Amino acid sequence: MPRPSEDALIATYFAPIAGAGSFGLRDDAAVLTYEPGQDLVVTKDMLVAGVHFFADDPPGAIARKALRVNLSDLAAKGAEPRGFLLGLALPDDWTPEWLAGFAQGLGEDAAVYGCPLLGGDTVKSNGPLAISITALGAVPECKMILREGAAPGDLLYVTGTIGDAALGLRLRIGAAEDAEWAKAMSQTEAAFLAGRYLLPQPRLCLGAALRAHARAAMDISDGLAGDLAKLLQLTGMTAEIKAASVPLSGAARKLVGQWPFLLETICTGGDDYELLCAVPPPEASAFEASAAATGIKLHKIGAAEPGDAPPAFKDKRGRDLVFAQPSFRHF
Amino acid sequence: MPRPSEDALIATYFAPIAGAGSFGLRDDAAVLTYEPGQDLVVTKDMLVAGVHFFADDPPGAIARKALRVNLSDLAAKGAEPRGFLLGLALPDDWTPEWLAGFAQGLGEDAAVYGCPLLGGDTVKSNGPLAISITALGAVPECKMILREGAAPGDLLYVTGTIGDAALGLRLRIGAAEDAEWAKAMSQTEAAFLAGRYLLPQPRLCLGAALRAHARAAMDISDGLAGDLAKLLQLTGMTAEIKAASVPLSGAARKLVGQWPFLLETICTGGDDYELLCAVPPPEASAFEASAAATGIKLHKIGAAEPGDAPPAFKDKRGRDLVFAQPSFRHF
Repeated sequence: MPRPSEDALIATYFAPIAGAGSFGLRDDAAVLTYEPGQDLVVTKDMLVAGVHFFADDPPGAIARKALRVNLSDLAAKGAEPRGFLLGLALPDDWTPEWLAGFAQGLGEDAAVYGCPLLGGDTVKSNGPLAISITALGAVPECKMILREGAAPGDLLYVTGTIGDAALGLRLRIGAAEDAEWAKAMSQTEAAFLAGRYLLPQPRLCLGAALRAHARAAMDISDGLAGDLAKLLQLTGMTAEIKAASVPLSGAARKLVGQWPFLLETICTGGDDYELLCAVPPPEASAFEASAAATGIKLHKIGAAEPGDAPPAFKDKRGRDLVFAQPSFRHF
Repeated sequence: MPRPSEDALIATYFAPIAGAGSFGLRDDAAVLTYEPGQDLVVTKDMLVAGVHFFADDPPGAIARKALRVNLSDLAAKGAEPRGFLLGLALPDDWTPEWLAGFAQGLGEDAAVYGCPLLGGDTVKSNGPLAISITALGAVPECKMILREGAAPGDLLYVTGTIGDAALGLRLRIGAAEDAEWAKAMSQTEAAFLAGRYLLPQPRLCLGAALRAHARAAMDISDGLAGDLAKLLQLTGMTAEIKAASVPLSGAARKLVGQWPFLLETICTGGDDYELLCAVPPPEASAFEASAAATGIKLHKIGAAEPGDAPPAFKDKRGRDLVFAQPSFRHF
């Protein structure tokens, strides 16, 4: 089959979903107008087939995940999306149907999240599909929430539920050792966990609450235990986390009740894309009220305290939970 | 050999070359202060080993080329660099020496061009090395030079010399059919052409002259013939280009004199990263004077005129030069 040129491919699949400032993707650059009183926040995540997603995932879902993991970073920084650039390295065996599905998913999310496609680059790959997205956001001047900043006594919160995506990934891999608990789940529960891996939910609505009340924040992409350690160590903090305080979905709770070893997957597995933040105690009730108004669920999991050790996770009897690999590593 | 974590790798190799607003690369995002009176220009180019460069090129040169092709886009838009984000998909066989060389080249160019590393993502690749850079620049409000805009009578200029990189690439590939002319070159000439492929020169100094005088501009990455066609067709223009007016280096001139078929490589081969622009005749002398003050060489190659056909390249006797493939396609 003859291949369209890069320009033809862009005009067919991506120009229809491009936003203002992109010049219909007919230029080599895009323009963003300066917003008085705002800082620009930039973030970039790269995803490779076979590492960050499965090559046979639906193309629309691959596109959405690639955009959403970037939007999740903007959310954690208290920023609002303004647009994104797409770098796409396409393996030789792409089909028009695949690319149409990819562009459709991307366009739908760009519309939902108010984050238009501004530009990018499509190249041939002699390897796996690779997607590199740079997301641009705006935050009121000097109000970007850093990962660094947790102080003694700050309350530690997470959004949503933790570990579903990691369980979903284990299910998807289908290792023999997981057969027993995998069979114990209902179809609905299995689909829920798989969906949490496939399509993260960027918690953008929490931006205003974070900017008003949080001292530090990040999104949980590499597992709660590892990412919490990263956030706390920047200011010489540690924490004691009661495993029972980690918010679980119904499916995860059912599994852990019967197969307690899965708690390690839940606390250390990646791809949650929930937010983690540190809030000074005097701000706690206002923060919780602001979050409640957005509908995003919030759970307090502990408090920061001075210390060099990584945060300790405790079981119901107060014993340390020891994790073989405290952080999920895509790398 | 045990592999460092992504965080350790970033702290070792990339944090030392990171700029203000990057928070030492310890955050998931960077911040840029908006500049009153300026627009933000964003561009993204992706490079894959075996497609855009050779995997065994020196790592510092690979890094520099990846940054420079993005800076070249900023140059063509009349923008000044403000910083860049780096997406790096590393194949499994990377070595600390390779990565140190890559980071050193990148850091040197970041310093030379005043374009600090702001952030990015380093991931594992199960395929070839892939580099995705997003460059951010600033341009006075509404002054970004578009690819679209050439009007009837506009003079067409290119910077530097054309085709050296394409000849350098042919030399590097070392096809049997090229053996004769490849042997006819001095070592100096061969090294010059190879260097033009390896390391483009972004023409950033031309920014002020472009903003003041040009109606349309782009960088020539996919060959003069194809890129000129792209620029002109956006406003229904064409042009007649005398091949003799295309500026050639001494090495290229010597080769074409003896092997005229190489003119096709010169006019259609990629990787020049010179600039192409359209300037209204009343602005021509002021534009030429501004360019001369920067030391960047400028050559007039023709004028835009209404028409749907791609620009025609003419030999000395006025005959059409027919190119088998009018545009170099990485894709």
